[in-house]
Amino acid sequence: MEPDDPIHPWRVLESGHGPDLRLFRPRWDLVENPRNGYRLRALVLETPPWANVVARDAEGRFLLVRQWRFGTRSRSLEVPAGVVHTGEPPLEAARRELLEETGCAAARWSTLGSVAPNPAVHDNRCHLYLAEGVERVQEPSLDEGEDLETLWMTAEEVRAAVADGTIHSALAVAALARVLDLRVAAPEPAD
Amino acid sequence: MEPDDPIHPWRVLESGHGPDLRLFRPRWDLVENPRNGYRLRALVLETPPWANVVARDAEGRFLLVRQWRFGTRSRSLEVPAGVVHTGEPPLEAARRELLEETGCAAARWSTLGSVAPNPAVHDNRCHLYLAEGVERVQEPSLDEGEDLETLWMTAEEVRAAVADGTIHSALAVAALARVLDLRVAAPEPAD
Repeated sequence: MEPDDPIHPWRVLESGHGPDLRLFRPRWDLVENPRNGYRLRALVLETPPWANVVARDAEGRFLLVRQWRFGTRSRSLEVPAGVVHTGEPPLEAARRELLEETGCAAARWSTLGSVAPNPAVHDNRCHLYLAEGVERVQEPSLDEGEDLETLWMTAEEVRAAVADGTIHSALAVAALARVLDLRVAAPEPAD
Repeated sequence: MEPDDPIHPWRVLESGHGPDLRLFRPRWDLVENPRNGYRLRALVLETPPWANVVARDAEGRFLLVRQWRFGTRSRSLEVPAGVVHTGEPPLEAARRELLEETGCAAARWSTLGSVAPNPAVHDNRCHLYLAEGVERVQEPSLDEGEDLETLWMTAEEVRAAVADGTIHSALAVAALARVLDLRVAAPEPAD
């Protein structure tokens, strides 16, 4: 970012927290628009880093997890994922979540960078990993507040599941896009 | 979803709202795990649908927007996007946001489906569109609480910006993945 970058940082004039929402801690920042001096209160939902894992076995099959999601009140097919604990390196969180959710471990781990789940609202990153040579080493260990199904799918099946909306979590799609070509073959007219 | 689907819906036993957080309306659902009967209070942050637009001109160049984001307190390069107003068809919201943020209109609109921004927490969808034959028809009309830069980029520049993290919004990445092959050429070992 050069000194003459036309997008200037917004000054934070005040900052205070709202009521705790478990995974999210609301914070209100009084910020000032560098373009015109206009001030507004911006809501930030502070939340820890997350980790998402694109997991493949030695034959290249993908390991997905399927669960009921409380936001959409629907089933969602996603990549193994979870919250990074305080003080935990993101890679360790990725290994732990893969093991807990699926009972699997991987022979090789690669980084796929990270994304911001929602840069307008959240302060966190979601770290993306590729786990290869994945195999079952134990039973999944779900806590009593989880209900989860694991599935093995071919690359073609995963691409089809993204295309038909079975895989619809933006974070799962962002992770899979690092590994699979997810282009829509022939977009349909919208009007 | 067949009747013998192993992932059963969770019963909602109670539901109530928390304090209003502007774009988000917190709701607590008391839900019951179909696997073991365990009950927990799930937080849902209700929010309207969103729309994201992958916009290209007649030469195939991409139109991106750059702005300061309050969540990450950093600049973010994204596709034109916004909130769908109450009663507004998502496609109209996409047209409106493209026009307001960039002053551009498109010759052709195609649907790229939708994603769930966070199915665990939000109840909404983000509708994805491809706008083609985009050209500037008026000045952008930013409200006083916005500061935004528009940029034209080649497909190769957009792919590089995703790869190096300049484009890091999960929703922007999910939208662009419908149009561009975003695979990482050679993932680096993570450990």
